[in-house]
Order: sequence, then structure tokens, then C-alpha cells
Amino acid sequence: MATRTQGDDIRVAVSTVILTLRRAPTDDAPSLALPLVRRTRDPHQGDWALPGGWLEPSENLEDAAARTLHETTGLSPSYLEQLYAFGAVHRSPQRVVSIVYWALLRADEVDAQSAAHVRSGLAPENVQWFDAAAVPPLAFDHRQIIDYALRRLRHKAGYSRVAHGFLAPPFPLADLREAYEAILGRRLDPANFRRQVESADTLVPTNEFRTGSHRPARLYRYNDNVELADRGPLAAEEKRTR
Amino acid sequence: MATRTQGDDIRVAVSTVILTLRRAPTDDAPSLALPLVRRTRDPHQGDWALPGGWLEPSENLEDAAARTLHETTGLSPSYLEQLYAFGAVHRSPQRVVSIVYWALLRADEVDAQSAAHVRSGLAPENVQWFDAAAVPPLAFDHRQIIDYALRRLRHKAGYSRVAHGFLAPPFPLADLREAYEAILGRRLDPANFRRQVESADTLVPTNEFRTGSHRPARLYRYNDNVELADRGPLAAEEKRTR
Repeated sequence: MATRTQGDDIRVAVSTVILTLRRAPTDDAPSLALPLVRRTRDPHQGDWALPGGWLEPSENLEDAAARTLHETTGLSPSYLEQLYAFGAVHRSPQRVVSIVYWALLRADEVDAQSAAHVRSGLAPENVQWFDAAAVPPLAFDHRQIIDYALRRLRHKAGYSRVAHGFLAPPFPLADLREAYEAILGRRLDPANFRRQVESADTLVPTNEFRTGSHRPARLYRYNDNVELADRGPLAAEEKRTR
Repeated sequence: MATRTQGDDIRVAVSTVILTLRRAPTDDAPSLALPLVRRTRDPHQGDWALPGGWLEPSENLEDAAARTLHETTGLSPSYLEQLYAFGAVHRSPQRVVSIVYWALLRADEVDAQSAAHVRSGLAPENVQWFDAAAVPPLAFDHRQIIDYALRRLRHKAGYSRVAHGFLAPPFPLADLREAYEAILGRRLDPANFRRQVESADTLVPTNEFRTGSHRPARLYRYNDNVELADRGPLAAEEKRTR
């Protein structure tokens, strides 16, 4: 606008919180993890931050989040959900409003997409996955953003949503319970958990069983009639243009 | 930024969806209504739009929404909740990302705040309340924004939330049921509704009764232990600075 001065400058950025569930080799229970990127520029050069970047004038918000996520991490979740717009005045030296997206990604998807990124030769060395309970000091208000994403996950987690996000079907209920335990940060009673899932109608039992050292465990798949995510108001118009 | 060109210009705006429940003189049942502002400038000059304006570099997002809402309508809800960030490329001739806030307001609050605005001599003539089911053609994607706010209201509506937002305590359950009927767009069975409210524990019966042409109706008040709104991740930091 002709009337704008340099001091009016407000920039729009996007960031993404990608959560997965991974089982460390030495650990019995899986835990939540997310990728962070080490900043190569000021402000906060050398600090860890969420994947992200500037919004380009010609791209929609979700497209920008998907592009910057893929450029930095090689990840391409099948959908991104808008989390929140962060716009506190002093969250960055320059005035920046960040539109933050989030998604859940299965560990096997993370592995496949990361491997493809490495093969492409584009994989940067400054990306690293961290346990969500042990993130390093972060740039800007990104710690607050991660805390909010985890809070939303705890709040919104339905059996189907979490199963879709973290588990490849078919899976035994014990895997889903462990996912819940990781999200909620506490142990759940297996029998109670089974009763709740079975009454919730969001998962469907199969006739397959996982066998091993324990007694055979029935496998479940998703009930695809249940809506997974709030795709926001612009599901039709603002879909990815790539 | 020194490297930015004029074509990079992306501006940040705020808009608000304020919903109230009002009973037309000729109507038995109340219906949802919201204030719209007739635009005095291009683009879309002369069209109706949501209250809003540009984000100033020195103000937080919620502050900007509260300021522009008050400037145009005189309304000052006790809280504003972030609804969504709308950023489709072609939603405006110039590239504009709008952070939209929303709130529920009681009809008596609307009346008191609007009257004060008129007394102040600042009340613009280009503000008008519309039935949410009969809004005129709107500027930009504001129709989509309103539809999304109504969808979120239907989705998130808990007894306590709607009661807090639309009804002055103490109130009879019939008033709450009518509020629900307006939100959901369908009739509810009074006996079923009473059972659901009483089992939900979000309202508390008083020993007061409303008397009139019908048999006396017990009045209810809020259970203040129930959280009303998702105040977002920055409840402490991004609170209003005014």
C-alpha cells in the first residue's frame, strides 16, 4: 500500500509440528518425537527451531507449510491441520505472524520419507528428531508452540485419530494403548482400555491375529466412517495446488 | 527486509465473528444474529463484511481484533477466541492473511454496549445486525468464515459454553433449549434435553423459579468449574495490553 512505511512491516511465516511415535531400541514403551531444524541464520542462529519458512505471495498457507516442511525434512504428511496463528508482538526481533500447522506421522512413513530425502542428496544435516519430552532450548516461541500442539493432541485424541496418525493397520490394541500412554504420559489399564475402544465404534476388529511370544492378539483396523481431522473451512478451496 | 520487493507484499488483517441470540418481536423462537459492517472503500465498496481491519505492528492479534471490533461496532466481549487463519491466495485482490476471532455475546450485553456506543457519538451508521441464516452477499470470503464459525459453534457447543455465551443467569432450561435449537437448527425434546443437562454437570439448579403464565420454572446458573473456551496457547503472554 502506498501509505505503508518501513516500520509497518509485518511478515507472515509458517511452521509445522510433526509428531510421530517411536520406540527407542533400549526402551519398552514408545514415546512422542518431532523433527527440529538447526537455524543457520540470525536471529537465533545455531538454535533449534520448528521446520518452516516465509509464506510466498503465490502460495496458500497449507502449501507453504507443506513446502517448507518438505524442503527442510523431506517429510510429506498426507494432510496438515492448522494449529494456531502465533502473533505476539515480541516473539521475534522483526514482527512475524506465524501460521502453524501440525500432523501425526507413522514411524514407518517417517523412515521411508527420510530415506528418500537422503537418497535425493537434498537432505540437510541440520535436521534431528527429538523426544517431545526432551526438546533442547528453542528459538522464538517454538517451545510454547510445541507445548500447545501436545496439549491439543491430548485434548483431541480420539481412538481413531491417534490410530490413523501413528499406527499402520492392522494393529493390536496393545499398540494403540501404548500410543495413548505416550500421549497422556501415564499408564492405562489394559482391560478398561479395551472396553472403551470396543464401545467407541471407531475401530473395527479383523479376523487376523499377531502371534509371538505372548498369546495371539487380535488385530484392528480403522473405521473409515469416522472423520479424522478438522480440515478447516477451506477444504475445497485451499487444497494443495501442487 | 532489504531483499523484499513490492510484489512480496503480504498484509495481515483481523476480523471477528460476534454471535448473539435474539428474539424478534414477532417471533416465538430466538435465532442467531451477528453484526456486519458496510464497506466504505474498495475492494468490495458498499458490500457487507465482518468487523475488522489491519493488524498494527505494535499490537497483538487479539488486541487488534478487539480494537477493530470496538471501533466499528462498540462491542467489547470479555474474551475473543481465535477461530482460524484464512489465507487463500485469491481471497482478496491484494494478498491478505486474515486472523479471525470469534465470541458469543448475550443480547443484553449487545444492547448495553451498542447504546453506549451511540451515546458516545462514535457509532457509525454502517453497522447492522443480521440473522445468521439470512446474511446478505458478503465481501471476500466472509460468507465462508461465518459458515465455519457456525459449524464450530455447533461442534463445540457444550451446555455450559452456550449458556455462558448467550444467557444471563439464572435462566430456565427452556431458554437454554431454545438457544440449542437456534444453534442446531432443529427442535429438541424438552424432557430429553432436561435429562441430558442434568447428567452433564455443567449447570447448577438454584432455588429460584420463574413464574408467569406457565407453571413455575426452576432457574439454573453456571457451574464455574467448567472451562469455557480454548483461550489458546498464549493466555498469559498474549493477553490484551490495553
